Order: sequence, then structure tokens, then C-alpha cells
Amino acid sequence: MHRRRAGLSAFFFVTFFLPLHAQNITVYPPHWWTGMKSPTLQLLVRSDDPAFNKRTVTVNYPGVTLQKVHPLEHGKYVALDLTIAPDARPGTVPLVFTTGKKTTRVNWSLKARTTDSPFAQGVTNKDLIYLAMADRFSNGDPTNDRIKGLRDQSLHRDSIFLRHGGDLQGIINHLDYLQDLGVTALWLMPVLKNDMPHRTEHGYAVTDHYTVDPRLGNNALYTRLSDELHRRNMKLIQDAVYNHVGLYHFFVQEKPTRDWLHEWPAYTNTTYKDQPLLDPHAARSDRERMSNGWFTPQMPDLNQQNPYVANFLIQHALWCVEEFRLDGWRIDTYIYNDLDFMNRCNQALLDQYPHLSLFGETWVHGVPNQAYFARNKFDIPFKSNLPGVTDFQAYLYGIVSALNEPFGWTNGVNRLYYTLANDFVYEDPTRNVIFLDNHDMSRFYSVVGEDIRKHKAGIAWLLTSRGVPQLYYGTEILMKGVANPDGWVRLDFPGGWPGDAANKFTTAGRTEKENEVFEWTRTLATFRKNSPALTTGTLTQYVPEDGIYVYFRHEGKQTVMCIFNTNDKPATVNTQRFAEGIGQHTGGTEIATGKKYTLGSVSLPEYYLLVLELTE
Amino acid sequence: MHRRRAGLSAFFFVTFFLPLHAQNITVYPPHWWTGMKSPTLQLLVRSDDPAFNKRTVTVNYPGVTLQKVHPLEHGKYVALDLTIAPDARPGTVPLVFTTGKKTTRVNWSLKARTTDSPFAQGVTNKDLIYLAMADRFSNGDPTNDRIKGLRDQSLHRDSIFLRHGGDLQGIINHLDYLQDLGVTALWLMPVLKNDMPHRTEHGYAVTDHYTVDPRLGNNALYTRLSDELHRRNMKLIQDAVYNHVGLYHFFVQEKPTRDWLHEWPAYTNTTYKDQPLLDPHAARSDRERMSNGWFTPQMPDLNQQNPYVANFLIQHALWCVEEFRLDGWRIDTYIYNDLDFMNRCNQALLDQYPHLSLFGETWVHGVPNQAYFARNKFDIPFKSNLPGVTDFQAYLYGIVSALNEPFGWTNGVNRLYYTLANDFVYEDPTRNVIFLDNHDMSRFYSVVGEDIRKHKAGIAWLLTSRGVPQLYYGTEILMKGVANPDGWVRLDFPGGWPGDAANKFTTAGRTEKENEVFEWTRTLATFRKNSPALTTGTLTQYVPEDGIYVYFRHEGKQTVMCIFNTNDKPATVNTQRFAEGIGQHTGGTEIATGKKYTLGSVSLPEYYLLVLELTE
Repeated sequence: MHRRRAGLSAFFFVTFFLPLHAQNITVYPPHWWTGMKSPTLQLLVRSDDPAFNKRTVTVNYPGVTLQKVHPLEHGKYVALDLTIAPDARPGTVPLVFTTGKKTTRVNWSLKARTTDSPFAQGVTNKDLIYLAMADRFSNGDPTNDRIKGLRDQSLHRDSIFLRHGGDLQGIINHLDYLQDLGVTALWLMPVLKNDMPHRTEHGYAVTDHYTVDPRLGNNALYTRLSDELHRRNMKLIQDAVYNHVGLYHFFVQEKPTRDWLHEWPAYTNTTYKDQPLLDPHAARSDRERMSNGWFTPQMPDLNQQNPYVANFLIQHALWCVEEFRLDGWRIDTYIYNDLDFMNRCNQALLDQYPHLSLFGETWVHGVPNQAYFARNKFDIPFKSNLPGVTDFQAYLYGIVSALNEPFGWTNGVNRLYYTLANDFVYEDPTRNVIFLDNHDMSRFYSVVGEDIRKHKAGIAWLLTSRGVPQLYYGTEILMKGVANPDGWVRLDFPGGWPGDAANKFTTAGRTEKENEVFEWTRTLATFRKNSPALTTGTLTQYVPEDGIYVYFRHEGKQTVMCIFNTNDKPATVNTQRFAEGIGQHTGGTEIATGKKYTLGSVSLPEYYLLVLELTE
Repeated sequence: MHRRRAGLSAFFFVTFFLPLHAQNITVYPPHWWTGMKSPTLQLLVRSDDPAFNKRTVTVNYPGVTLQKVHPLEHGKYVALDLTIAPDARPGTVPLVFTTGKKTTRVNWSLKARTTDSPFAQGVTNKDLIYLAMADRFSNGDPTNDRIKGLRDQSLHRDSIFLRHGGDLQGIINHLDYLQDLGVTALWLMPVLKNDMPHRTEHGYAVTDHYTVDPRLGNNALYTRLSDELHRRNMKLIQDAVYNHVGLYHFFVQEKPTRDWLHEWPAYTNTTYKDQPLLDPHAARSDRERMSNGWFTPQMPDLNQQNPYVANFLIQHALWCVEEFRLDGWRIDTYIYNDLDFMNRCNQALLDQYPHLSLFGETWVHGVPNQAYFARNKFDIPFKSNLPGVTDFQAYLYGIVSALNEPFGWTNGVNRLYYTLANDFVYEDPTRNVIFLDNHDMSRFYSVVGEDIRKHKAGIAWLLTSRGVPQLYYGTEILMKGVANPDGWVRLDFPGGWPGDAANKFTTAGRTEKENEVFEWTRTLATFRKNSPALTTGTLTQYVPEDGIYVYFRHEGKQTVMCIFNTNDKPATVNTQRFAEGIGQHTGGTEIATGKKYTLGSVSLPEYYLLVLELTE
């Protein structure tokens, strides 16, 4: 490719001053900040001029140097390598594109970094994450339900795959509800624009990386949500998608380079099998199908080994954290990405934001498999630098087994115990995000056969085990649904729409059972907020016997003892075996109910997780 | 404890020259060798004199220095630290024990190391191990079936828990059979004396570490078996038990020190749960129950942290390898031992015999668990130095799943594939010993519902997958049995006793089905012996699809393609996907049948593992 050096000569040209999208020239990222740690930035510039890549480019701004111009294969694109000096001042940076006698100037800006609001704080064991789907939580602004010009004009609450009208304003309207429940961090399914003809409700088919979907709100409103959360000492996690884009993204419609996507002689889906990535016996072709096959035909797979793609995505990540003042970064379909690219991207985020939480979706089977994608204790050539993962093992081979399988040598709660015992392969298992359900899995209340006893036990486990607990919206009010298809687990939160028959955001709107579960969750979550033992405390777990699993959380003077009866019958537990965990204590108080218990012989109902703070 | 230095003064005493067991003085080990790598040796000397530990000890032999005498807590014992100089010559070493005017001399010997026969060769991927139980394989010497003076006087072939009379001579008599079958290494369940009142048939309750059980033969006969094997280029593996001894061992009946065993306020069994050893969240008390609890009430748990116990066991291991000219060392109940002790013991063996194979029994659930006990890729404080393990995962979550579970995302042959994909956590998974059954597990033919198709597929897998294959006696002739209790999988090999109704060691004695399986096994095992691909070749496995699992073994010019149809229906497999493994080949020859196949579209029956050498 040509090298075109920027020169001062541009300064003397007659230039037209145009706004950012002037002549349909778009610059990605749309702005940047002074004082960022990395001095380099690569702008991707897109125009409707098919010979745009033949223009001369000049940039004349103190402290900003155009190092290199990369005309891309598709004529409408150039990439510009900039360096931004530490002493560069905020302001409007003119990007000047010249062809023959015609000169176009685009005003791109360098902003000052916000210092108003804390962000990039990280989501830790002290937090409780609430995962919600904006389209399905609450409709706070009926004017944006259907947006002219977008491909998907659907709007029908009776269909699980059409838009329902929920939005960011709906979320903002219910922050009090979340705060009261004990939630400290919000993770929304992707909020960026999905201008796709169908299935736009979930947000994973991004078509514009820098714009919040107008049906959810806009960039300013999303920033307001962030600020509202921070004002409440709550945090915001963004759901990031690197692996693919929506079919209608310009990445696909007008590929900047021929190798922008992974393309195959015939359509090739990913195998969804992680094994070839870590298997020493894997066939190369299986590794390629895994990583380079498409997630669905609607979601082309990005070639992250292309340096322009990689730069675009990494800068986009940094931009979002800075622009939207994020605290956490959840990475969708983590295992399908180019893992070396992911390491670069993670490192770039952590270099800039050392406390930012990063966790990746790792829907795999097996602790070694899951740990492979995180920081781990494997002495192997590929080392992931991802701090945390969504802990599918603790779910699939953990709490679900504990409640749904009869107790056996490798079954029932033994399986949960076994899974956590394998924590030794993680660098730090407490960074894992644990959950009972999410937007892809059947809702927990359905998984446990709509048994409120099991449901409450599951919630008690979620709020007392190791890791960062994540609640899926509606689990606190017994929402049901089996993920077949996934739309059934993405129903509307009742009361989120004007005129809903019941408003489950309020005590009065909930049934007795729903209130029982809501209060159980709220009491435990609220206690947890200020419990050193349940947040940063050590976990000590005992070999389960007779379907009873006992574990402790300890921190300083606080000891929480958890006795989990996974049997279908009441049980009486002799606590003598647990002397090491109990110490000098003789009794405790059940956190959820305030009931006092004397240790020695403790009786508890079937499917019950007794969470005792040892107070005596 | 006192220190008593040996002095030359002993030379001038009047001494009585007595044989080794003089005045019931017994020395362990009973002899040693010159030219061993380690110059140190600790003799444990046992007498019937209750004040034996008060005697003065002198040793006067060129090159042998008594460094220290340790009077043990029980008066009948002393331990003697010797150093043996590199230039010490073989001969009779007088150990002189003096009390007052009485002096007792015991002749202990230093022998020259044998150089006649190769040994300590190691059992590698090139081998096929045959695991047999001497009492149940063949009765070659009816005169030793019942031995006067031993506690167990039972002898009844109709009871699974009584002695049947099989012996080492019976094994020796059938080495031609084993060699013809393609076996290259023999592993016998423990052959050392079990002078216990009941359940002596299995051999795991050792009461004398230095004597072959007289019902099986004697030390000389065991050495002869070793020599006979080596003469055939076959190898011998000893089954070693470090964790416990039989209740009637002097270790228990007259403990040399108070802490010789792990003793508990009340009888405490091991939990049989390995998790507390590796679990970062484990309770200390659970770790102690695991390691220090007894394996059964009949088998007290040795305290391997006691240095005398440790020295005794380590020297015993070295002694056995040298004395019996062993090639491999299988370590029973590996995970229950003190793991630091095991590392010391393994290292001592490998220092002396760098090629000796060591593999431990690891009946656990989970690849990380199993790998924890072997040399692995975990960057954790405890590092095992054990080269190989008995691969229970490849069995429990491997071949059994492949043949007995319907194909599913995590079931059927996918589970086998998943298990092997996790090989990345081992230092070298090819050191694992793979098997279809053993003396503790239900026999494979019973596990697969007596379906000869599945049985043959299992054998084909055993002989083509990675690792060191191990066949359990009788699996080649369809012996049946469900391990409930374990005696049912330890039935007599038909034809091993004079007068047996049928002699399954011969073609004529076997049924048509038995011959079919025998020949299938023999043909594959014989081919394997000289197949670089199937022994040292790389394994390449593909993601299973539709119940079909395809893998390759490659070495140099040889390629073996294995197509495993685990479905209950015949299948036709398009081989295009496997181009990477197939290379330029267009066809192959089925090893078991000689049948020619053309690649492209390959049809195979249900439950069939087609093993093709790509010859075209």
C-alpha cells in the first residue's frame, strides 16, 4: 500500500469546513480524548466517494500527527494512523482530504476526559449484577418504539421475536426498584444500533458501533443512565460483541478490504465446539471452522487478524468505556473470537482502565475448557489474559445438578462441590460471574420445575457462593420460560408497560409467592452488600454427605455458615464435623428470616439453603 | 533419640555367627546391591528381644559405614543408617548387635547387580499390558494351593472371595498364549504375602514386603517369570501398595513407633474423595480424612511422613525392581498416599531406573483431578512427578459413553472426544494407561450389555487410541461379570485348572463368538506391535458429527484412519472433511479383516470401529 505523509502544505489549501458526516464522510471513532494512555489511534474514514482512497490527507493540529495514510482496497475507505501527544489540547481537529483541486475538510474532535463521575470502577465480588434486556424491561418512551427508516418496523408484544418497545428510559425509571432489590450493577444486552430486518430485539447483530439503537434511546440517554447509576453507587456493564456484526453493517455491505470477514467457498457455520482450540489432537480444519465459521447466517464473522478490523474493535471498546463511563465489559461469544486478538483488546482496555471488569461468555462444558479462556494456572503456550468468565460450569454442573439430580457419587450436590473443587485451575475463580439463568438459558424457575423451594435455595446459593453473582431480570419475581426457542426467556417484565394488567415492580402488584421470593432475594442481597464474609471472604466447602452440602464464608470476624439440604425430605444435620469452620460459635441467625439457630443439631426443610450468620 | 556410632572395637568382640533370621532378627531389606546410585540405605532391624533397641551396633565391612543407629520406640526395633561406598564389593556384611557381654552377629549381604537380563525398560505406547490375577488365571502348581501356617486356609473355586489355587506357575505356563495374543507386558495384582484370615485372593493386604505369597510361588519363581518374559521380549509390571498394609503386618501388630500408622480416636474411613487435596476451598479436616482415613478396616493406613516408614517403602520399591527385574511399577490407590512422599519415592525409582514406567491408580472423576496426580501443566504449588496414570477418565467418560450413551452435545462419543481434548492438561497424555476394564470394574462385555459389536469396537479403540493399552485377563474371550461385589469380575480363566470343562486358552476350547473376539484382538494387537502410527504416532481427532467419530494416527509414512460409528444403525461417511488427515491417499485396508476400502464414501455397520491402514 501507498504511504502518504501529512504535510504542513495542507494548511495553505482552500478548504471547505464541513461537519463530521460531510459529503457522507464518516470517521470512526467519531471523536477521541486527550490524555489517553496510548498515544496512537487509527481512524477509519468512510466516504461515498468511490475514489476516496486516492485522496491526499493532511491533519494540522498541535500535538496531533498523521503518521500514515492507508488507502484501503475498497475505494471508499482510508485508515489514518495518528499520534496524539500528551500535551495535545481538546479542540476541533481538521481532517483534510484532497483530490486534484477539490479539498474537503472534516471536523473531528479531541475532547477532554470527563472527571465528573467515577467510572471504570470494576464489578467485583461485592456487587450484584442485574442482567436485563432493554426491549423487554420497560417502555419508558413510547415515542421511540418504531423508528422510521430502520429496516425492522415490527412492534408487537405478543410475538417473542418482534420489538416490544422497551427502552433505556424504562430502565432509568426503575433504578429505584433495582437499588431497593440490592442490585449494584446493571448489564444490559447490547444497546448499539441493530438496523436489521428481523430479530433486532436482542441487540447482538450490531450495524453501527457508535450509535445507541434509536428504539432504545440515544447516546446521551445511555450516558445519562450511566450517570444515574453512578449517582446511586451502582455500576454499568456493557455487552460487547466483537466476533461478528449484523449482515447490514457496512463491514459486510461494503467491505473495506477483501479479507475483512471470514468467508468460505460455501456458507460455513461455526461448530460451536471449543475443543479444537485447546485439544492437542485437534485437526486444523476443525479449529478453523470453530473460529472462522459464522455464528449464524445473519452474523458474518469478522477477521480480527486483519489489523484494521482489530484496531477498529479495540478503539471501539476504549471509546465506549470512556464515552459511556462504563465499569464492566461483558464480551459476547468470547470463545469464537480470535484469541490473540482478544488478548490484545483486553490488554488495551486494562492498560487504560486497570480496574475495569472484563468477563467473557464461555458457554462450554468442562472446567478446563472454561478456564482455558480465562487467566488460568495452565502452563501452556496460549495464555488468555481475560480476568473473568460467565461461569457456565457452576450453573450447568453446579446449582442445577444440586437441585435437580438425586444425590450420588458424582451427581446432585456432589457435582456442584466437584465443580468448585476444580477452581484450582483458575488464576482467580472469584472473578467468575455466577448465575442461575440468563438471556439464553431457560429461566431458573422453569428449570427447577416451578418449585419455589428450589428457586429460593438457588437464589441463596447465588448470593453466598464465590464469584460475582448475576441475577437475570424477573428471576426475583418468578418469571418463567424455557429457552426453546430463546424468545421464551425474554418476556416482558410485567408492569413495565403502561396499562399492564399487573405491576410486579410493586409489592401490591406481586402475588404472595412472588413477594416471598422478592423479599428473600432482597433480604439476602441487602445483607450481602455489607457483608465482608459473603463478598470478599474465603470460601470453605466440605465434602457433601447424604445430600447435605455445608460451606462457610469467612472474613475477619464474620462467619457465615451455609447448610444446603438438597434432599426432597427434611434433614437434621450434626454440625460437629464442621468445627473447623464454626470455631468458637454456638449459634447463629438466619439472614433471610432472622430466626435463631443453635448449633449441634440443626434441622432444616427439604430443598433448603440455610444461610446463618454465626452470631453467638 | 540416642546416637550410637559404630566403632572398630566391635571387631575384637567374640561374636556368634548366625543366619539372617537368627534369634528372630530380621533385616529389611534382606539384602542390597553394590553399585546402586544412592549411597545411603536405612536398614530396619526387628528382633524378638524387647530391649533390642538398647543394643550397641557395629558394622565392619570395607566400604560400608554405619552412620547412625536409631533405637525406635518399640524395643524390638532399631534402624541403621548405612552408607555404601562406590567401591564396596559384594559379600557378607556382618551386623553385630551387642548388649552387655552378649553379642549377636547377623549376616546381611551385599550382592552384585544382575546384568543377565534387561529390565527397568519401561512400558510405553509400544506395549500392550495384560492385567491378570494370579489366583484366578491358572493353577500351575496344585501343591501350593493351601499353605500350612497361613491364616487363610480357604480353597474353594465356587466362592468368589476364597482362594482358587492359581499361581505364578500357571502364568508361566501360559506365556505362549499371551505372546500369541500380542501382549507385551504383564501386570499381576500384588504377589507379595498376604497372611490375612480372609480375602487374601486379591493381594492388596500385604503382610510381608519381601516375600512372594507362598500360594503363588516364591521369590525365585517370580524372578523366573520375569526372566521368561524378558526372554520373549516381554516386560513385567509390579503392582505396588504403599498406602496401607494388611492388618496382620508387623507394622500393625508391633508398631516400631507410635506414629507408624494413621490412627484416629474412633475408626475413620477415608472419604474416597480426592477433591479436598486439590480444592482451594477445602476444609483441612476433609483433607485429613481423605489421606489419613483407612482404606478399609482391614488395611491400616501408613504414616508416610514418618521417616522410617518412608525409607522402608522407598527402599522396598528399589529392592523389588532390582530383585525381580521389573520394567514397570503400578502404584495402587495412588491418590490416598501422602503425595510428597510419593514424589520422593517416584524420584528415587527414576534416579536409579530412568526408563522404569511408573503409573498410579487414579480412580477419580474429572480430567483436572486425574491430571493433578500426574505430571501436568498446572502451575500450582504441588507438582506431582508421577509420569502416568490409569486413565479412568478415558474409560468412565470415554469409551463407555461412546458405546452406551445416545449421541448428544455432551453425550455418547462426544464425551470421549471431549475427554481426550482435555489432554492439554497432562505433561504427556501418552503415558496414561487406557483400559476397558480391570479388577475393580465391571467387565467390559457386561458393561456393553453383552453386545459383541460394541465389545469389538471397544477393543479396536483400546488398540488405536493414545496411551498404553491395558487388557484385563479374559476380555479377549468375552468373560463377563458385574463388579457388585468386585469378586464377580475376578472369575477363573476357563482352562486354567486341570479338569476345567473347556479350555479357552485354545481355539478348540473357545466358542465361535469367543474366537471371533480373540482373533479380532490378536490381529489388531499383532499389527499394532509393529505399527509406528498406532504406537508412537500422533493422534488427530475430529469433532464427532452424527455419532461418527473419526481420528487418525500418523507416524512417518504410515497413516491409520479410524472411523467409529457409534450409532445403532449402519452409516455412510463422507470422508472429504478429513482431507487433512487422509493426505494423498485414496483407500486403505482394514487391519482386522484385510478388507479393502475406497475413500470418499465409506459405509460401515452399527457400533463399528473401522481401523484402516491407508495403503492406496
